[in-house]
Amino acid sequence: MDLSSFRVQPGPVDLTSHPTSGSPGFDGDKAAGKDALAAVAEELADLQERLVATGRSAGDDAPSVLLVLQGMDTSGKGGTVRKVFGLLDPQGVRVASFGAPTPEELAQDFLWRVARTVPGPGQVGVFDRSHYEDVLVARVRSLASPEEVERRYGAINDFEAGLRAGGTRIVKVLLHISPDEQKERLLARLDDPTKHWKFSPADIDDRALWADYQRAYEIALERTHSEDAPWYVVPAGSKWYRNLVVAQLLRDELRALDLRWPAASFDPDEQRRRLTEQDPLA
Amino acid sequence: MDLSSFRVQPGPVDLTSHPTSGSPGFDGDKAAGKDALAAVAEELADLQERLVATGRSAGDDAPSVLLVLQGMDTSGKGGTVRKVFGLLDPQGVRVASFGAPTPEELAQDFLWRVARTVPGPGQVGVFDRSHYEDVLVARVRSLASPEEVERRYGAINDFEAGLRAGGTRIVKVLLHISPDEQKERLLARLDDPTKHWKFSPADIDDRALWADYQRAYEIALERTHSEDAPWYVVPAGSKWYRNLVVAQLLRDELRALDLRWPAASFDPDEQRRRLTEQDPLA
Repeated sequence: MDLSSFRVQPGPVDLTSHPTSGSPGFDGDKAAGKDALAAVAEELADLQERLVATGRSAGDDAPSVLLVLQGMDTSGKGGTVRKVFGLLDPQGVRVASFGAPTPEELAQDFLWRVARTVPGPGQVGVFDRSHYEDVLVARVRSLASPEEVERRYGAINDFEAGLRAGGTRIVKVLLHISPDEQKERLLARLDDPTKHWKFSPADIDDRALWADYQRAYEIALERTHSEDAPWYVVPAGSKWYRNLVVAQLLRDELRALDLRWPAASFDPDEQRRRLTEQDPLA
Repeated sequence: MDLSSFRVQPGPVDLTSHPTSGSPGFDGDKAAGKDALAAVAEELADLQERLVATGRSAGDDAPSVLLVLQGMDTSGKGGTVRKVFGLLDPQGVRVASFGAPTPEELAQDFLWRVARTVPGPGQVGVFDRSHYEDVLVARVRSLASPEEVERRYGAINDFEAGLRAGGTRIVKVLLHISPDEQKERLLARLDDPTKHWKFSPADIDDRALWADYQRAYEIALERTHSEDAPWYVVPAGSKWYRNLVVAQLLRDELRALDLRWPAASFDPDEQRRRLTEQDPLA
């Protein structure tokens, strides 16, 4: 499946030109999509084990991958973490969720809490929301001055360039849904008492600012998209399709690391001899 | 399946009386075992979602669960994390692996690095090795004085009692294998270049001290088993059976939390009305 159509192009971004639903580029139904995901899962498991192995043997020199997930409420960030990152070995996964900053966090630069939770060598990290909130909600709700928001685009680019220089591949995903889809999903949450904990009345306040958020996203994507830290706008109206696309994006980043199995630092024949000659209970 | 036969009894522990292989108490083969695990996985997903939901709504008052995994090399600690904790939503899982302590860690009390990695409210944590290494390898290889090792049993009990008082349920698992099984598994690692990274010549040095390690385990289990932080000795010769037993132990801890879905802090009807009356693109 060709994912390049979801990749943001340099220059101004128009989100209305990006689909929010359907399964563009995939020739199959939901069942076929789940089969395709299972195949990607197998490759992900192999690639991630190589990454973990490299982390064990190369230590701080081992690379890592960070996937940033952004999107409006109900766009499926949590579901994507569960269904895509749940395919990986939890030993090599680092999940970070970013809610409203605490007083301690507010006392620091906006990147402070983010820098503390980036994936370590050999890890795959995922951000459920991220430092992008600091140029999205911060802009829409004037939580920071226009000058400060302006400064942050550059600070984000510098921060991500530093991560990349340190061996972290970065891919950024906007889960794109329509306001109608959000309405349906919010109503479904309200209808199901086991989903009430996911709902907040503030979600409806934010929804009233839909156009402002879309504009803030367009500006953020334009200002922070780069060859080394690209943005993808993924149609997220269909959950199985969203999972498949994000899993493939993650797989492509892991593939790009071109990971080999670490070479043995010992002679296997000698160790085999030691082992067979030994009687531990003698 | 009745797991009580694996539970350590108060008093002296004799590991030779605990099976290392087979599928005691389970009436079925490997395929049936995998089906049984799938059923446990469904219940785990529901229970864990309640725990995550409770964490979101109750904050620091939310409970948590910690599963401590110990066992000789190749006993399957890593595989258990992958296959059992891989069943959970990664957003609510915290995995900590403990290797040989770093110089920074050695400069602190042995519990320092452990206390920093316990699961937070609403999380399920798993330790791949743990503070028990500080009374196992430390005892066998005299990495600490006998007096210090002696002190540590009490310190561990106090530490775990504190965790429990803070709302963390603790269950401790020894993955029990025979020396013959270990030999087979080490040979398999040596035969497979994609497994070389899991092997270290030091594994064979440790294996020469098999009886000393078993004795150190027996003492540790006797000294640190309690009603509130029990030890289970799980036959780990068969991987599918090991996964099934550990998954059930985890499920039982989650069940014991008796978690309800958090009550809504809003009136669903009112929010439904707000949502349907709103036109975000008006």
